[in-house]
Amino acid sequence: MGSYRSVMTVDPPPETGTPFERAARDFVIDQVWSRPGLSRRDRRWVTLTCVGAADAPQSIEDQVFAALNSGDMTIDEMLEFVLHFAVYNGWPKGSHLEGVIRRQWSRIQSERGLDAAIRPPDNATLGSTDWTERIAEGTREFIEVNLIDAPAPETPYIHAGILNFVFGHIWQRPGLCRRDRRFITVASVAVCDAALPLASHVGSALESGDITKAEMDEIVLQLAAYSGFAKGEALHYTAENAWARLGHRDRPGH
Amino acid sequence: MGSYRSVMTVDPPPETGTPFERAARDFVIDQVWSRPGLSRRDRRWVTLTCVGAADAPQSIEDQVFAALNSGDMTIDEMLEFVLHFAVYNGWPKGSHLEGVIRRQWSRIQSERGLDAAIRPPDNATLGSTDWTERIAEGTREFIEVNLIDAPAPETPYIHAGILNFVFGHIWQRPGLCRRDRRFITVASVAVCDAALPLASHVGSALESGDITKAEMDEIVLQLAAYSGFAKGEALHYTAENAWARLGHRDRPGH
Amino acid sequence: MGSYRSVMTVDPPPETGTPFERAARDFVIDQVWSRPGLSRRDRRWVTLTCVGAADAPQSIEDQVFAALNSGDMTIDEMLEFVLHFAVYNGWPKGSHLEGVIRRQWSRIQSERGLDAAIRPPDNATLGSTDWTERIAEGTREFIEVNLIDAPAPETPYIHAGILNFVFGHIWQRPGLCRRDRRFITVASVAVCDAALPLASHVGSALESGDITKAEMDEIVLQLAAYSGFAKGEALHYTAENAWARLGHRDRPGH
Repeated sequence: MGSYRSVMTVDPPPETGTPFERAARDFVIDQVWSRPGLSRRDRRWVTLTCVGAADAPQSIEDQVFAALNSGDMTIDEMLEFVLHFAVYNGWPKGSHLEGVIRRQWSRIQSERGLDAAIRPPDNATLGSTDWTERIAEGTREFIEVNLIDAPAPETPYIHAGILNFVFGHIWQRPGLCRRDRRFITVASVAVCDAALPLASHVGSALESGDITKAEMDEIVLQLAAYSGFAKGEALHYTAENAWARLGHRDRPGH
Repeated sequence: MGSYRSVMTVDPPPETGTPFERAARDFVIDQVWSRPGLSRRDRRWVTLTCVGAADAPQSIEDQVFAALNSGDMTIDEMLEFVLHFAVYNGWPKGSHLEGVIRRQWSRIQSERGLDAAIRPPDNATLGSTDWTERIAEGTREFIEVNLIDAPAPETPYIHAGILNFVFGHIWQRPGLCRRDRRFITVASVAVCDAALPLASHVGSALESGDITKAEMDEIVLQLAAYSGFAKGEALHYTAENAWARLGHRDRPGH
Repeated sequence: MGSYRSVMTVDPPPETGTPFERAARDFVIDQVWSRPGLSRRDRRWVTLTCVGAADAPQSIEDQVFAALNSGDMTIDEMLEFVLHFAVYNGWPKGSHLEGVIRRQWSRIQSERGLDAAIRPPDNATLGSTDWTERIAEGTREFIEVNLIDAPAPETPYIHAGILNFVFGHIWQRPGLCRRDRRFITVASVAVCDAALPLASHVGSALESGDITKAEMDEIVLQLAAYSGFAKGEALHYTAENAWARLGHRDRPGH
């Protein structure tokens, strides 16, 4: 119970006693969320990404409310999250998520008798206006994040998309630290299960040390709970292979 | 018409005459649901999984209503289905599905002037609390279901997830037989299209004999209708390869 | 046969005689692709979006090959498509699609003994670097495309994402005409099934006249074939409601 409250920030609804509901508490809350090894805030990034990608209306409302109401995430962090989420999961899902965040934030603030106003971002935050410099920065950031060479800007997707926008801007925005962006990105590519991006983002998250293997193992379980064990299994094997490729034969901590 | 009624348990809505609507009847109803080779109840497991995973609100309402109203599934089986579905497709989609099942069940029972109460499961149904025994049972069940060695419980995903919960409990629950769980699982991994789980669950369903190749061929078509020919094609090739790997060269029955 | 060849640009594989395979020809090829009311090229935009979103590896290879080999799409149009697709379906799926397009293009050109080189885009194509002007242009384009007021740039998602990038740049790129972008966008939002973007993009496509109701009806069927009748039904009802909202009570052509 206490643990349900600490995750959802409200008391659990009255038991209706279905197998699903029982397992949702005994397994998801007591055996996943309650685990050490990953902070509640880090579990929220994974969970918010999973429910946002699943278009599960009630879960999105509940998880967004819990993230804001718990104070684990600020409104600015949540709004920055939507932008990063939209890049990896598509703008339509981002659009729905943004609406929920703004509605839940208004609700929380008005219940607290506080102002729900949002600080509009300044155009200066949009970064360099010299395209040559911007592509160069995007190339540097791509290498730093992915730990591999950057592709040449020879297609619209790579040029206008990846180097100019995704790495030329999004990953460099100060609104979220790179470690936070890694959690959101790893969960996003695992949910969308495109094999190559999955392997590269899981591998670079581990190789960079931004996410330890023990933390990645917790991400796998958290994601399996919210996006299903099928996608969880794909992420699990991807992480194991990446870990082995990095020259680790035995288990972390051994 | 008769066949639309037997599938959806209501009369078809008035024709609006769009190509989609015509195909939804001529193809989906007349050329898929009406086929021999798979019972209507088995087709419902595949269909319920497809619409549940697709977050298609109207289809979920209609298919859940039809499954319960036809009597093909009991309310207890449907509630057990949600739990299995949630494991493979994630809790958020499961949560939405559970809400629909409860609403449609109340509606059906009240229209019949019958009690819509649900028998809450007994905690005893949650299985062994001797974790060593539970992991051992989960390992046994994993091998029996997947027909391959079980992984060592060295990560949270394998330990708390796969061996303790998915195979240590879910697959052993009496609420649905293993064959029913195979239908739901094969459809789930096909919809989520993670290659590895797809290959392993399709292969073990065939190798175990729980699902024949002719039945799997019908599952492929039923899934293609509700989740699309793109995912259908992936399942088709996975089934053909698994069947060949099991040493069958020609078509079943040839 | 002729029709399979005209769609896939190769002879059909030898029949293995599964129900799926028969339906993939009798229904998808003969009853969907062969219909009048939508050009083969327009059907390809819908199909490429569906298979790209489904992570169906073989279908992606086959449809990309057919689109390029038929000459219905130029390599420049296909590369521009990836960028638009990535925006609506997320960059990971875009990344996989781009790899397939480049591989299939090289294969096709080398088989023809032709050069497969790609013209790298110029930085000038990235548009205005005056952020104020860019946000103003993005706002104008948002209104023109969506036929509703544009949101104020008060969150990162709206500011850096929607107004600066999606409408401040992507929709204004000359690489594809607006009508082409409408086909890709309608299919994308239908596949991802986020209710609000679905309603707004389907509604504005019809209201603008860029896509007629009869063409939208064909899109619904094409999408139902490749992404399933569950998502097809959601798109169908969305289109019917949008059409009614626009004051059309009866069927097109009546």
